[in-house]
Amino acid sequence: MPVNLNPPVAKQLLPVEGVILGIAEANIKRENRRDLLVMQLCDGAKVAGVFTKNRFCAAPVIVAREHLAAADGIRALVVNTGNANAGTGDQGLLDARTTCAALAGLLGCKSTQILPFSTGVIMEPLPVAKIAAGLPAAVANMTGDNWFDAAHAIMTTDIVAKAISKQVVVEGATVTITGIAKGSGMIHPNMATMLGYIATDANISQPLLQQLVSTAANRSFNCITVDGDTSTNDALMLIATGKASPNEVTSHAAYGVLLDAITEVAIYLAQAIVRDGEGATKFITVQIEGGRDEDECKKIGYAIAHSPLVKTAFFASDPNLGRILAAIGYAGVEDLDVAALQLYLDDVLVAENGGRAASYQEADGQRVMAQSDITIRVVLNRSDVNATLWTCDFSYDYVKINASYRS
Amino acid sequence: MPVNLNPPVAKQLLPVEGVILGIAEANIKRENRRDLLVMQLCDGAKVAGVFTKNRFCAAPVIVAREHLAAADGIRALVVNTGNANAGTGDQGLLDARTTCAALAGLLGCKSTQILPFSTGVIMEPLPVAKIAAGLPAAVANMTGDNWFDAAHAIMTTDIVAKAISKQVVVEGATVTITGIAKGSGMIHPNMATMLGYIATDANISQPLLQQLVSTAANRSFNCITVDGDTSTNDALMLIATGKASPNEVTSHAAYGVLLDAITEVAIYLAQAIVRDGEGATKFITVQIEGGRDEDECKKIGYAIAHSPLVKTAFFASDPNLGRILAAIGYAGVEDLDVAALQLYLDDVLVAENGGRAASYQEADGQRVMAQSDITIRVVLNRSDVNATLWTCDFSYDYVKINASYRS
Repeated sequence: MPVNLNPPVAKQLLPVEGVILGIAEANIKRENRRDLLVMQLCDGAKVAGVFTKNRFCAAPVIVAREHLAAADGIRALVVNTGNANAGTGDQGLLDARTTCAALAGLLGCKSTQILPFSTGVIMEPLPVAKIAAGLPAAVANMTGDNWFDAAHAIMTTDIVAKAISKQVVVEGATVTITGIAKGSGMIHPNMATMLGYIATDANISQPLLQQLVSTAANRSFNCITVDGDTSTNDALMLIATGKASPNEVTSHAAYGVLLDAITEVAIYLAQAIVRDGEGATKFITVQIEGGRDEDECKKIGYAIAHSPLVKTAFFASDPNLGRILAAIGYAGVEDLDVAALQLYLDDVLVAENGGRAASYQEADGQRVMAQSDITIRVVLNRSDVNATLWTCDFSYDYVKINASYRS
Repeated sequence: MPVNLNPPVAKQLLPVEGVILGIAEANIKRENRRDLLVMQLCDGAKVAGVFTKNRFCAAPVIVAREHLAAADGIRALVVNTGNANAGTGDQGLLDARTTCAALAGLLGCKSTQILPFSTGVIMEPLPVAKIAAGLPAAVANMTGDNWFDAAHAIMTTDIVAKAISKQVVVEGATVTITGIAKGSGMIHPNMATMLGYIATDANISQPLLQQLVSTAANRSFNCITVDGDTSTNDALMLIATGKASPNEVTSHAAYGVLLDAITEVAIYLAQAIVRDGEGATKFITVQIEGGRDEDECKKIGYAIAHSPLVKTAFFASDPNLGRILAAIGYAGVEDLDVAALQLYLDDVLVAENGGRAASYQEADGQRVMAQSDITIRVVLNRSDVNATLWTCDFSYDYVKINASYRS
């Protein structure tokens, strides 16, 4: 079960003026399942995004990048679950373009004004006829208050839907931000597709919007994902409809307010993915302090966060904390002085001077390990750079879910 | 259960003249368990080795390196299980030296002529008094034909002991090579301690012996371990007693014969560790062909070999082979043209031209996935460098073993 993650409440999800959403059952992988989402954007809405760096990136990622680059003005996004359209070669590209053309025909716009997204099994042909057949129902279903259903329509192995809204005042205007995301295989960052869609009615230029999404992604989704170690389909899209104000955000202060609010939404969604991690029973914050640069902090953080030995010890609530020291040691920081660092579990000093702290009591470690939210804190004492990552533990259910996902 | 790995047969393990071995029960972690091994070497025997690159390397690793560097002539090795003496700070170093001193006293040599090794739980104080108390029994037990018992004495979570002997003729003299190893957490290479001891009666100089062990390790144990991603205690030691011949191996041809034979022993032991991998049900060979250099071949090989998604699919015997493409894509080879490579499962062509091969039938994939030994073959078509790695699948039992190892 997800770790301290409440399902979204429909009435707390705020419409974003200029965005309407429709859901349908297209029978892509199974019958009787909402598996198709269309988001239509108002004229003048802007879209910016970040995509997977995987060399085997999926066909829809290639097509979405092309269409964003065409700069014809994006009018709609279409998302299917049940099939990732990845590792599908030229046919996959054709299928993604066919999906866009079908939706463009229904909405009366150009194909290049549609962004396609897919998530599900890899290396199976996309059932594009089923998607095309489902689109009219999705379009007919479109309203502004469909965010709750939209969050459900993009789920795959997710147990809980991920959605949140937030309002802030930017230069006198109330700005609404609503975001949804899917993903649940993030126990290791290369696992499963992460899709995130955040919409706001803020009025902001295309270059600033791109800067916003890149910065917010680096502080949220990229803290649960190793650089470059992404799935074939990962994408985070940020939509700005401009309806909140006739004036574009230009001041540094206003940009900062908007960035903070969008980052907060992105962090909530990213953490929700970890809390709903496949088989997760613990939510673990890995905080590396006092490094020389962000790279070495993240190296050490990811070595800990990825160690199956560390993760299974947390699953067992067993303070077998030497495994964390071993992970720090093989993180690849060549000149690391292991005798100079401190390791904490929440507020408990576990190790210093290259070994167990004199003050450490097994009972203290045991007490923290019994919690469902735990912070591993490593103080490197090398300089003043910090980094924080989020991960979860590694359980029987992780293996069960991934051994049976396709069948 | 181990995958196609037969236990060693005592009478097939050949004594190596100049090496005697003794085993004892020292009650280090549990009662009634052989947990202490002493190997005494004849005068003039040479020892060379490779050690973990972990920055948190264990106290015995530091001391063993020091004693090898002292070049006083190594007279004995001492190995304990049940405690790794890692993450133990200055006290750990003292404990490792105390162990050496105790054995040196019994054998009438200097402390610096002893190499200590430990494996087991990390960050617990070494029960050095128990080890010292157990040493006389181990010394009293020493004989040349104790390799079978020695292989058992160094096991931790291993199910099957790992040992093999081989004879080759080198410049007219019959040379015997006998090796033992322990390790079973190699489903991911940062897992558990790997210890290997190979002894030969070949007569070879110290520099050539060091070259031998480094080369053999690179072709065997380092193909189941990412560079630098090693445990706190990993070590492979190569002992040469010189008893087989009065003349040192000097010719290129003779060195080659010896290298091949020792590499063969090392590969057997390394593969045995994977076959006995914690919870393993499948032995997987990952063969990367046609790369530009070894680095990119290994990057791709390890991305596949480490992917929990790939490993759980193999556990399920589910040909969800798109997961392999995804792993190739995020391996970090920046200019990889994914449309130019072929993916095979044994002899079955699975993917080419960026997607599923036209000839691929699910039934063929299913047939290969049902086997217990499987080869994943990726043909990059970039140049002519190849690399082969070995790994295993990822099962419920892996989680079970590692969630309960300490308690």
